[in-house]
Amino acid sequence: MSAARDPVDDATLALLLEVAGTPKPGNVDRRRDLDDLRFESFLGGAVGAREGLELAATDEASVGDAFERGVAGMADRAGTNTQFGCLLLLVPLLRATVDDTDSSPAGRLTPTTVDRVTRDATVDDAVAFYRAFEHVDVAVADPPADAADLDVRRGSDAASVLRDRGLTLRDVLAISADPDDPDRVPDRNAQEWVEGFPRTFRAAEWIRADTGPLTDRAARAFLGLLAAEPDTLVAASHDPETARRASARAAALLGGGDPGSAGPADTDEIHADSVHRADLDAAESLATAFVDEGINPGTTADLTSAALYVALRRGAEVAP
Amino acid sequence: MSAARDPVDDATLALLLEVAGTPKPGNVDRRRDLDDLRFESFLGGAVGAREGLELAATDEASVGDAFERGVAGMADRAGTNTQFGCLLLLVPLLRATVDDTDSSPAGRLTPTTVDRVTRDATVDDAVAFYRAFEHVDVAVADPPADAADLDVRRGSDAASVLRDRGLTLRDVLAISADPDDPDRVPDRNAQEWVEGFPRTFRAAEWIRADTGPLTDRAARAFLGLLAAEPDTLVAASHDPETARRASARAAALLGGGDPGSAGPADTDEIHADSVHRADLDAAESLATAFVDEGINPGTTADLTSAALYVALRRGAEVAP
Repeated sequence: MSAARDPVDDATLALLLEVAGTPKPGNVDRRRDLDDLRFESFLGGAVGAREGLELAATDEASVGDAFERGVAGMADRAGTNTQFGCLLLLVPLLRATVDDTDSSPAGRLTPTTVDRVTRDATVDDAVAFYRAFEHVDVAVADPPADAADLDVRRGSDAASVLRDRGLTLRDVLAISADPDDPDRVPDRNAQEWVEGFPRTFRAAEWIRADTGPLTDRAARAFLGLLAAEPDTLVAASHDPETARRASARAAALLGGGDPGSAGPADTDEIHADSVHRADLDAAESLATAFVDEGINPGTTADLTSAALYVALRRGAEVAP
Repeated sequence: MSAARDPVDDATLALLLEVAGTPKPGNVDRRRDLDDLRFESFLGGAVGAREGLELAATDEASVGDAFERGVAGMADRAGTNTQFGCLLLLVPLLRATVDDTDSSPAGRLTPTTVDRVTRDATVDDAVAFYRAFEHVDVAVADPPADAADLDVRRGSDAASVLRDRGLTLRDVLAISADPDDPDRVPDRNAQEWVEGFPRTFRAAEWIRADTGPLTDRAARAFLGLLAAEPDTLVAASHDPETARRASARAAALLGGGDPGSAGPADTDEIHADSVHRADLDAAESLATAFVDEGINPGTTADLTSAALYVALRRGAEVAP
């Protein structure tokens, strides 16, 4: 790996490898468009997000402003929402990458440094996050009944509530990460924000330790992540039980044991070895089934792009 | 279209849409890898070329240095040659885009302005062009017997010959564009350099006037370009007759008439209407046949990326 590789280039490549990874059941990938979402829109979104990613990799803009700029550029190019969730994860990862509080470059991108970035997020970052929803339609679940005034679909109108209550972006995401209702599926991207990105760093190691083209490794990591936990977007657009069953079907494709019968496992319980032996041929059938059933595990794809970014920073290379 | 779109982003997107365009018979595309060349390498190459493309869009570097930097970055990321020819076309197109000799932005990217850029190329640009061959293996034909000292595979060793003879980059490419031997297939990329990019601008209009996803439009433009003229890389890696027959087979897929029996037509003779009615289903079979026969019309893919860039600058958009 070239020591001087630009983290913004790595983030762009992570977005491209994520959408190219195939099969990623239920998602747009190199071999599949969805009815209302095309592969080329993701190429446009990855290119359009550039300015926001560049801002994230400097200290000239806040994390919230960088995110909003990335979403606006993505939406302008793609004409639709392609990578909103990916950017929510990549922006703090980029900021942690360039944070020079730790002196060694190798130490810059760790759970600790990215956790510090999210702890540093402000109320203004929360306001920018809400503004980002004005650039594009994002599929989200209704908020809990007692948090209607924090519905992200309010966009800028939520600013006064955020300021009155002094809620930072991390505070806002903490609500989605840990819903009071046990029947609600937590927002995985929000969980990453408040938990130090455990899924991202774990899946990055799955990708690094795997072999073959990065697009295949990304597809296997996607299956591992989906097997581990029900997908937020599937729960929001169907229901939590559908999301749990989708994860159990992904778990059945992993190598070893019979995790399928047990339903989704914990992330911690999924071993790299099972991910590396995931059956991509069988995943082709699941991809067809998920598309037919309208099951779109988009949050799991977001996590996959974040994991690819960390894997690239740690030396993963495209296959020549 | 956003008026403020960054030409470097457009060039990156052109590289991505080119490789995603499918079917492009004989080339890597969204649905096909070749044995020794993968789709993900092209994603890496497009990202790695960024710094060179940025230099091309400023006046801080010469056209030759920007090209060499782009090739070096591409090779570092892709680990192989993915877009050498694309970059040779995109670099002067980018320079023409930002040239402010013409006052109106709309007037900046025309055959006239890009011709001025190539006329301004220097001996140093030629030396940089030769250096670029040291970063990566590029498939080229043997030079004419009387030009062995100008074999591009000599790399930096050719510098003294170039300087002694005062050959600019345009002079060097003029030799490949118009070989004395009538049995040699001219280098199409070199022809673009010395002729004001007629294939690029013509195919850009095919793409702009076409409908549907840009990846489909790119595939149809590729067939039109291949039908019009034998591919340089096919001639170099097989022979001119194989290249002519490959073009005739592409011509048979265009709409209207029976151009297939007549062999390749002139670019001027191919009408947008025939390109827009190209049969992409039939092209799938041709793609399989070309891969089986080892026919790789890579120069035609280079022209397609250049045409996509011009089409994007003139308002073409990815499909939402």
